Amino acid sequence: MAVYTHVPDEALTEFLSLYDLPAPTVFKGIAEGVENSNYLLETAGKRFILTLYEKRVAKQDLPYFLDLMKHVMDAGVPAAGPIADTQGNILQTLCDRPAALIEFLSGTSPQTPTPKQAIAAGTAMAQMHLATADFSGDRANALGPAGWAAMIEALGQRLDSIEPGLEVELNQLMTALIAEWPRDLPRGTIHADLFPDNVLFSGDTIGGVIDFYFSCTDFYAYDLAISMNAWTEEGQTDPTVAQAFREGYETIRPLSADEANALPVLLKGAALRFLLTRAHDFLHQVPGSLVRVKDPLPYLALLRHHRNHPGAF
Amino acid sequence: MAVYTHVPDEALTEFLSLYDLPAPTVFKGIAEGVENSNYLLETAGKRFILTLYEKRVAKQDLPYFLDLMKHVMDAGVPAAGPIADTQGNILQTLCDRPAALIEFLSGTSPQTPTPKQAIAAGTAMAQMHLATADFSGDRANALGPAGWAAMIEALGQRLDSIEPGLEVELNQLMTALIAEWPRDLPRGTIHADLFPDNVLFSGDTIGGVIDFYFSCTDFYAYDLAISMNAWTEEGQTDPTVAQAFREGYETIRPLSADEANALPVLLKGAALRFLLTRAHDFLHQVPGSLVRVKDPLPYLALLRHHRNHPGAF
Repeated sequence: MAVYTHVPDEALTEFLSLYDLPAPTVFKGIAEGVENSNYLLETAGKRFILTLYEKRVAKQDLPYFLDLMKHVMDAGVPAAGPIADTQGNILQTLCDRPAALIEFLSGTSPQTPTPKQAIAAGTAMAQMHLATADFSGDRANALGPAGWAAMIEALGQRLDSIEPGLEVELNQLMTALIAEWPRDLPRGTIHADLFPDNVLFSGDTIGGVIDFYFSCTDFYAYDLAISMNAWTEEGQTDPTVAQAFREGYETIRPLSADEANALPVLLKGAALRFLLTRAHDFLHQVPGSLVRVKDPLPYLALLRHHRNHPGAF
Repeated sequence: MAVYTHVPDEALTEFLSLYDLPAPTVFKGIAEGVENSNYLLETAGKRFILTLYEKRVAKQDLPYFLDLMKHVMDAGVPAAGPIADTQGNILQTLCDRPAALIEFLSGTSPQTPTPKQAIAAGTAMAQMHLATADFSGDRANALGPAGWAAMIEALGQRLDSIEPGLEVELNQLMTALIAEWPRDLPRGTIHADLFPDNVLFSGDTIGGVIDFYFSCTDFYAYDLAISMNAWTEEGQTDPTVAQAFREGYETIRPLSADEANALPVLLKGAALRFLLTRAHDFLHQVPGSLVRVKDPLPYLALLRHHRNHPGAF
């Protein structure tokens, strides 16, 4: 939620010269992104986001993320992608950090998405799944089932400070989930974090998808499950918007019978994954830090809902 | 350097309806301003800064600041002022905080200002001094000579952790300064914080002055002294840019002989004032906070320079 790296004028001028762009008319740090420094940059009548990748983003993953964003954008999916410089490079170095110039998309992220917005976002996700069929990049999902045991173990008893008995409950849930986790669903490149935060709209019209920095290779239907949870109002279980998301998705890429059958399990897994990372961030808050930590409890409620009502929502 | 208050969509829509403005096409938190939450807001093809005033700004001072900004902007001085709603109000409430919609100015703040930029900024300061002759607002300068003793006492021995012997040195300097402080120079509304940070330029062309939240009533020449220090490169004493600032100022409002004679004393006072607030912020850093604290040492060097070379720079 802040800018971590201050960019000196001369360094910026040199960076922009790679793109044959003149000095900026607007250059403002944006309070977005816990992981990176982002600037709104306006020059030559065009707007961009300049991103400097801070230490929390693994440097070796950046070519994957940026190539993916460019692939998706070039395929015509509404998404913000990196701009290539005059030499065709998209990954640069600025202030000793990896950096990229990203297309600026108009629009705002809905706090309470409408069903129409969910349909548009679901459609974009399916378009992305189809458009990346020929994307050669590959990245393991470190936050998938194989990672959960270590995540729970690392949090350990501190989970009980969120709610007494939580460590035992999550271990039981995880064991059951891993046993029933599907093995052979269609898989490919997924966004893995397509929350309403990460989609820009003007009214109900989608501007584009942003923030591909959790993208990885996994089941397509798991991506859908993540978003069906994410597009459900926090702390609520009203399925209307989640179902609209799925509806939009299936207009482009209908689920197979296996995928549809696996959805209740995938929804539980998606809820557990976000519960665990939110619990981690909650239990590792830095006193006085300005980073806003998301409440893990709504994801605990959602996880229990899916456990107690094993339907598609 | 962050956004402290998150604005719900419905609250924003209601706020914008006061101005007859539709839902925003862009709404991004800006990582600017230690004191307030600032958003870049674009709607109906126009750009604004939406500011929510957080607790560090004294609520009772806001009508003064906003009226002043409007007065200055309306007088044609290049400066960002608040926009009145359809009822003529400029001070609003949003998310339980005082809030205002401010004109957006293009341009960037120079990190290493050129003499031409300093001339333009000095000119704008003098224009502001003239334009506020008929401004009825009045605000005491809490950071002026009357406040220094309490500021030094509050920091006390901790000053010596910045540099051994600093508490004694500053007390001596302050006592001498107060004795020689001018009593009857021309006074009125001053910006009191016109650093290069607070002026936007496109190349050498001034876009406008921003951030009037230290404005107060004091000697005009003291405002000039603050900026002559502020436009000198940190840690340096090269007078070129400071003199250009004064030159620009005097094209609009030439200093009287008394003002010119008082300038060496005012430059020392201005250096002490910023040394003391920077020392305060430095000694009260919150561990883990993302707020960037400015180094007090360059102001100590500047203060000693003015003490040892009592000229106009």
